[in-house]
Amino acid sequence: MAALWVLLFCGIVTQTVADYEANWDSLDSRPLPDWYDKAKIGIFLHWGVYSVPSLGNEWFWSSWVGGNSEIVNFIEKNYPPNWTYQDFAEQFTAEFYDPYTWADLFKNSGAKYVVLTSKHHEGYAMWPSKYSYSWNANDVGPHRDLLGDLAKAVRTKDLHFGLYHSLLEWYHPLYEDDKANNWATSNFVDSKVIPEMKELINTYEPEVLWSDGNWESPDTYWKATEFLAWLYNESPVKDVIVSNDRWGSNTQCIHGDIYTCNDRYNPGVLQPHKWENAMTVDKNSWGYRRTAKISDILTIHELIETLTQTISCGGNILINVGPTKEGTIVPIFQERLLQLGTWLGINGDAIYESVPWSVQNDTLTSGVWYTSKDSDVYAIVLNWPEGNVLNLGAATPLFGSSSEVILLGNEDQSLTWEISDDQVAITFPDQATVMSEWAWVIKITSASH
Amino acid sequence: MAALWVLLFCGIVTQTVADYEANWDSLDSRPLPDWYDKAKIGIFLHWGVYSVPSLGNEWFWSSWVGGNSEIVNFIEKNYPPNWTYQDFAEQFTAEFYDPYTWADLFKNSGAKYVVLTSKHHEGYAMWPSKYSYSWNANDVGPHRDLLGDLAKAVRTKDLHFGLYHSLLEWYHPLYEDDKANNWATSNFVDSKVIPEMKELINTYEPEVLWSDGNWESPDTYWKATEFLAWLYNESPVKDVIVSNDRWGSNTQCIHGDIYTCNDRYNPGVLQPHKWENAMTVDKNSWGYRRTAKISDILTIHELIETLTQTISCGGNILINVGPTKEGTIVPIFQERLLQLGTWLGINGDAIYESVPWSVQNDTLTSGVWYTSKDSDVYAIVLNWPEGNVLNLGAATPLFGSSSEVILLGNEDQSLTWEISDDQVAITFPDQATVMSEWAWVIKITSASH
Amino acid sequence: MAALWVLLFCGIVTQTVADYEANWDSLDSRPLPDWYDKAKIGIFLHWGVYSVPSLGNEWFWSSWVGGNSEIVNFIEKNYPPNWTYQDFAEQFTAEFYDPYTWADLFKNSGAKYVVLTSKHHEGYAMWPSKYSYSWNANDVGPHRDLLGDLAKAVRTKDLHFGLYHSLLEWYHPLYEDDKANNWATSNFVDSKVIPEMKELINTYEPEVLWSDGNWESPDTYWKATEFLAWLYNESPVKDVIVSNDRWGSNTQCIHGDIYTCNDRYNPGVLQPHKWENAMTVDKNSWGYRRTAKISDILTIHELIETLTQTISCGGNILINVGPTKEGTIVPIFQERLLQLGTWLGINGDAIYESVPWSVQNDTLTSGVWYTSKDSDVYAIVLNWPEGNVLNLGAATPLFGSSSEVILLGNEDQSLTWEISDDQVAITFPDQATVMSEWAWVIKITSASH
Amino acid sequence: MAALWVLLFCGIVTQTVADYEANWDSLDSRPLPDWYDKAKIGIFLHWGVYSVPSLGNEWFWSSWVGGNSEIVNFIEKNYPPNWTYQDFAEQFTAEFYDPYTWADLFKNSGAKYVVLTSKHHEGYAMWPSKYSYSWNANDVGPHRDLLGDLAKAVRTKDLHFGLYHSLLEWYHPLYEDDKANNWATSNFVDSKVIPEMKELINTYEPEVLWSDGNWESPDTYWKATEFLAWLYNESPVKDVIVSNDRWGSNTQCIHGDIYTCNDRYNPGVLQPHKWENAMTVDKNSWGYRRTAKISDILTIHELIETLTQTISCGGNILINVGPTKEGTIVPIFQERLLQLGTWLGINGDAIYESVPWSVQNDTLTSGVWYTSKDSDVYAIVLNWPEGNVLNLGAATPLFGSSSEVILLGNEDQSLTWEISDDQVAITFPDQATVMSEWAWVIKITSASH
Repeated sequence: MAALWVLLFCGIVTQTVADYEANWDSLDSRPLPDWYDKAKIGIFLHWGVYSVPSLGNEWFWSSWVGGNSEIVNFIEKNYPPNWTYQDFAEQFTAEFYDPYTWADLFKNSGAKYVVLTSKHHEGYAMWPSKYSYSWNANDVGPHRDLLGDLAKAVRTKDLHFGLYHSLLEWYHPLYEDDKANNWATSNFVDSKVIPEMKELINTYEPEVLWSDGNWESPDTYWKATEFLAWLYNESPVKDVIVSNDRWGSNTQCIHGDIYTCNDRYNPGVLQPHKWENAMTVDKNSWGYRRTAKISDILTIHELIETLTQTISCGGNILINVGPTKEGTIVPIFQERLLQLGTWLGINGDAIYESVPWSVQNDTLTSGVWYTSKDSDVYAIVLNWPEGNVLNLGAATPLFGSSSEVILLGNEDQSLTWEISDDQVAITFPDQATVMSEWAWVIKITSASH
Repeated sequence: MAALWVLLFCGIVTQTVADYEANWDSLDSRPLPDWYDKAKIGIFLHWGVYSVPSLGNEWFWSSWVGGNSEIVNFIEKNYPPNWTYQDFAEQFTAEFYDPYTWADLFKNSGAKYVVLTSKHHEGYAMWPSKYSYSWNANDVGPHRDLLGDLAKAVRTKDLHFGLYHSLLEWYHPLYEDDKANNWATSNFVDSKVIPEMKELINTYEPEVLWSDGNWESPDTYWKATEFLAWLYNESPVKDVIVSNDRWGSNTQCIHGDIYTCNDRYNPGVLQPHKWENAMTVDKNSWGYRRTAKISDILTIHELIETLTQTISCGGNILINVGPTKEGTIVPIFQERLLQLGTWLGINGDAIYESVPWSVQNDTLTSGVWYTSKDSDVYAIVLNWPEGNVLNLGAATPLFGSSSEVILLGNEDQSLTWEISDDQVAITFPDQATVMSEWAWVIKITSASH
Repeated sequence: MAALWVLLFCGIVTQTVADYEANWDSLDSRPLPDWYDKAKIGIFLHWGVYSVPSLGNEWFWSSWVGGNSEIVNFIEKNYPPNWTYQDFAEQFTAEFYDPYTWADLFKNSGAKYVVLTSKHHEGYAMWPSKYSYSWNANDVGPHRDLLGDLAKAVRTKDLHFGLYHSLLEWYHPLYEDDKANNWATSNFVDSKVIPEMKELINTYEPEVLWSDGNWESPDTYWKATEFLAWLYNESPVKDVIVSNDRWGSNTQCIHGDIYTCNDRYNPGVLQPHKWENAMTVDKNSWGYRRTAKISDILTIHELIETLTQTISCGGNILINVGPTKEGTIVPIFQERLLQLGTWLGINGDAIYESVPWSVQNDTLTSGVWYTSKDSDVYAIVLNWPEGNVLNLGAATPLFGSSSEVILLGNEDQSLTWEISDDQVAITFPDQATVMSEWAWVIKITSASH
Repeated sequence: MAALWVLLFCGIVTQTVADYEANWDSLDSRPLPDWYDKAKIGIFLHWGVYSVPSLGNEWFWSSWVGGNSEIVNFIEKNYPPNWTYQDFAEQFTAEFYDPYTWADLFKNSGAKYVVLTSKHHEGYAMWPSKYSYSWNANDVGPHRDLLGDLAKAVRTKDLHFGLYHSLLEWYHPLYEDDKANNWATSNFVDSKVIPEMKELINTYEPEVLWSDGNWESPDTYWKATEFLAWLYNESPVKDVIVSNDRWGSNTQCIHGDIYTCNDRYNPGVLQPHKWENAMTVDKNSWGYRRTAKISDILTIHELIETLTQTISCGGNILINVGPTKEGTIVPIFQERLLQLGTWLGINGDAIYESVPWSVQNDTLTSGVWYTSKDSDVYAIVLNWPEGNVLNLGAATPLFGSSSEVILLGNEDQSLTWEISDDQVAITFPDQATVMSEWAWVIKITSASH
């Protein structure tokens, strides 16, 4: 089963002069660019004008319009009566924004790609877009091409650079018009969405195009297949770009290079199609929240658990942190990302370039998840085994006379194990001597399977 | 000659189901809507984001980009280094804007129409335009439909309402693109200019469309004739709208309902085509200037002189005052407009609904200008005659036994006159008994001519 | 009667080593410095943080606290809920403040001295006071010594420089404490008022100290006589300083170098003590008002009328204009001041260094006011005489065979007059030949009286 | 030696009608209020206008004036040329300030008292001081009594509330005057410092007065002994207040209730006088820094190590975190404080109400520090012992037949130990079964000593 699945999405991409047609059958036949599945871990950045009020979450504007009492009270208490969302843009200062410092952090977190919100549902463009005059980061706020500067910095660290892009804009009058016309017109798509997506692709050559804001109208309104045919046939990134499944109300989890399904999608079982778990370190928000409490922040245990489950089930994980309006990534996010980097420094063999094993989580001991690479199988152990003895069910068939069991980080000593009919008992070393913290990886080699 | 000229542009408009074609021959054949020539006097309002820095003039942005030292120094001294023009918008507060107070003032000035800048070269829309999202008065700055509110107020005073509109936008990236393409592309016109002009016309039904920003590219780029054909054939204001001649680099003073030629155009001789003198009370600027000195402001004498010359030569006058960012019209402008209103209250008969006379300015005494109405001729006297005796050359033929000469404002007493071969000497009353100030109008009736 | 009065306050000041005692008998015995009565006309400037909201008047803060609905609505509509008066200070920018331009204007207005609010009831110091740390023009707002810069500029034009100073500060907590203690304590006076007044006097050496804010507590609380004794005996301006009568709730119109009595005090009859009419060009406010209408502004006729009445009755006039927060004096104020300067250029002989005549206004014709100088008497005529003949009652005794009557501005021709028992009829020239506008001055010389 | 020391500062305070004299001999004879030494752990909060620029550290203003290039560049790049420090105050918004949430956090950290900066060297008062009109938190910025609201909240959690207060103000003109006079004058002290300290004490009744800003002038200039005599004899907190040693350039580490000596004072050996280690979780700053990196933040290991050393040597620890201008304590600080709270929840017996033992750190194994309580001795072990066996030197004499050794958090099982001549070897449990993280406490009871 694992072998079959590998064939599905891990084939080497041969650079063909493919000519995809503007329909899903054709588009879905495109092989996934090789780099993506190997990378496993990306950083997601939600940054925009919502980073200024920095309250609630990145849906601040919509919550306000919708009468959310926390937001409404905040506005009433702190701003003049006729304050608009656009007025926040002037306070989007980014004076401490150093994309090279960010890139260092992302590199040290163990991530292999970085995806920035080029434009969220608010419509504010993080680059000097021709199609968003006076509502972009160059004209109001930071007065800088935030996106372009990050692209440059990220690439100096050999990280892949990608872009999130929202199709819809909540309050763009042309979008509202098309909506009022029941999508019979497409002025918004023709004069805004398609031109700006092409501008993004041609200017910044991202390797991920993470589409969003798709839920109100079908792919036909968005002219999604036409755009993707251009992207795959003609664009400067046609051979490397990876896009997702959010191209219309009717495509999510159905079409696209990778499936993101719902936010924080983490199905817990192996998926038949390459997927990604886009999730957040702040449990409650993608954008930075000034009122975040430490209890809202994932512990490093929780983060490693989610990562482990995701990778075991064939997903990539896209870990979101929200930068501040000043252009910083606050220490608590730095800490989590660097803790993850430390863990991956010891245990990354079980993650990068791995493929799912035939079983995802152990049948006997909960909190144990498997990955594999070549003939090795990795068991990622989320909880230190009681009495220092780990009992595995699903892995039993792997054990034979030539099997070797190693704890990553403590490679100088093989672990002893004892097999019975249906389980194998592996003895862990004294915890005080163990290098890895938070979770531990058992590598089982020379396994006969 | 005068009679001929009257036929040219003062014929009564018959509401035909005219079907103008999109070429100048056809468009130029359209009769001028009747109201316009009778009205004679309009108020012009330049109001926009430039009213915030309120320095130099309404070309502030362009001057800044162009390195004008006054502007550059002002910015360097008072704003952070990365300040942009768009950042001024948030300070466009208009908190004291009461369009009904404005309308009262305009009414009392004697003007018959009011023309507001809907959008100047900066591109900022003074109404909530669908085509200028987040760069309009509703989204940033006043948070209000400044234009619509003025339209309503002005019409309650039986004043005609008109709109100025700049075709070009200095720094709109789509315009810059078309320019870089030597006008071979027209994305800016198609996605921005035409839709927004139609939005303006359909929403606010103005009676003047005062086009500007035409000088860099030909009428074909702007699709001017196509637009005007729509305006004259199909728009809701097809029967009443008056437009001007600024529809391309090749049309000014050549095509259009009325000719504006250059700014502050005041040729001093009768024109063969209906024209308008758009001029300013602040000699140096159309937009409000916080640094204006009283010596920069036209005196009431200068204003009446310009008005007189303009009307005599067949023009309308469009008198510009620049409102403040707070939404007020400052007292010095109120004073000038009300002084004008006082003068017109006495002397308006010589102005409104008048037509040029066969001679424009007197051949003997300088500073005397003529208008006419039916069989009456008006001599507008800009300087009190030395020795209280006014000698006229051109008017001599008008005087016969039945002629009556009256000073407007002192109608109870006819003036005595004495004729010689080539001039007539009219004796003025004691100035201390005269109602009118600043300039005086002699009405010559029962004239044989 | 006039002669006596002249003795009272027009004696030449002999520079004595006077040693005034800290009681009113002694202080009131000090002769008025000579320059002041001769100067006649001063400019008063109310400028402070109230120039920022610039609404209502300079009592903005107090009106707000008092629940004035216009102010309260303005704040509620335009500012966040917790906005304080102090928050306005940051917008007091004064970026266009050029004191030399101001000084030019004041010089050209015909004024001889200039009085600036050093500190109004709001407590904000217009100079970098040691006693108003962080609540002064150097620390917040203009970041400049507004007062000192004006002093320098004004003196280059040979104008006298003076300072207004408010004793009380509405909301200073130490003042509020002393008030709550029924003036039994004087922490505010000791630690704030006296030190800051001495700082002002020692640093800027003003020639006028225009005290105000005196009405809530007696002179004893303010330690007024002690301060004045220092001012007259020891200060660097002891020989030239002129102060007024607002030194306690019990001193106004009773003690002091000059009496100001009420604001806009204009009694219409001769006063036994030197006095000053402090009045405003904007009828409704001392501070600049952004909402001022032209009908709120004194006409030049009204201004000349007030000036004439004031001078005739022995007063000086202190003409107030409110500068803007940007540091400009708006054109309408420039116009009035320059109109006044034009009028004084022709008619100033009747004003400067004049003394009241035995009669102030004519007994027969209203609107005629007298001044005198040496043996000349001036009749200032506010309304052009009907039929060009001016009938005077009170002046009749002046006319004898050697009398000469001249119209200022038209000195080349004496006016003819005819005397009867109780009146004299003076024939005016043709108004069209007259130089002066708005009001006219008849000089009667060689009068026997 | 320890016993003697206990007598010195841990005696029960008897409420006497003590009458301390204004000299150090008398003042230093006052017993330390009982609560303080028992409390051991306090939270220090540096919060003020420096929290707005939030760069460098709380000496931002002084660094700027001193030409610090990071600060100067920041200002030049982000603010207009004439920007002043006072201008930052308007951005001190504190909109998310909830003192009850803070108090919860402090309680959960295990701290027993909280000390807030009432006024730092900038002079900005965090309460509505009568002596800092318009330069306090009520007048500009938060428009709220930040200090008073915290006092209330903190006391609902049974935490002691204290205040930091800076004697000097860098740029107060009266202070600068006194300095220029070589401290021969004391206007600043008389009109500002003493009144405001009394206002603080009388209004908020703090239990700590943490004086600072003392280094430029002697205690005599500050009138320190007079003030302290008032504080100890007459003030409402005379029986409970604890003050420190920063009362003049000549008092630090010499006089006062407690010695703070230098910032982050941690001598590592027992001190003869009660002292306090005021230190910071952000290694580089007391005020919040927006640019803090995670590497600048103490790890929980480092924090526990410092705490342990401090308590062992007889000090209290005052742990500083800097709140943000918005009024939040950022997650990384929450995390550290809650980690500390977790550790103290298990190990607090070794800390609170403890007294130093006769030896502070072990003679054999580094990283082991002692405290004691009654007959128990606590060894705090900062590093897990190699091979799970801890060898102690100094503690050897404690061990006898009746001795019991317990690991805090794992009290159900006594630890086995083996004694030799000069050391005792204690066997630790399997680390995987141990409750405490980061550091471990061995309690040795029934010890004969």
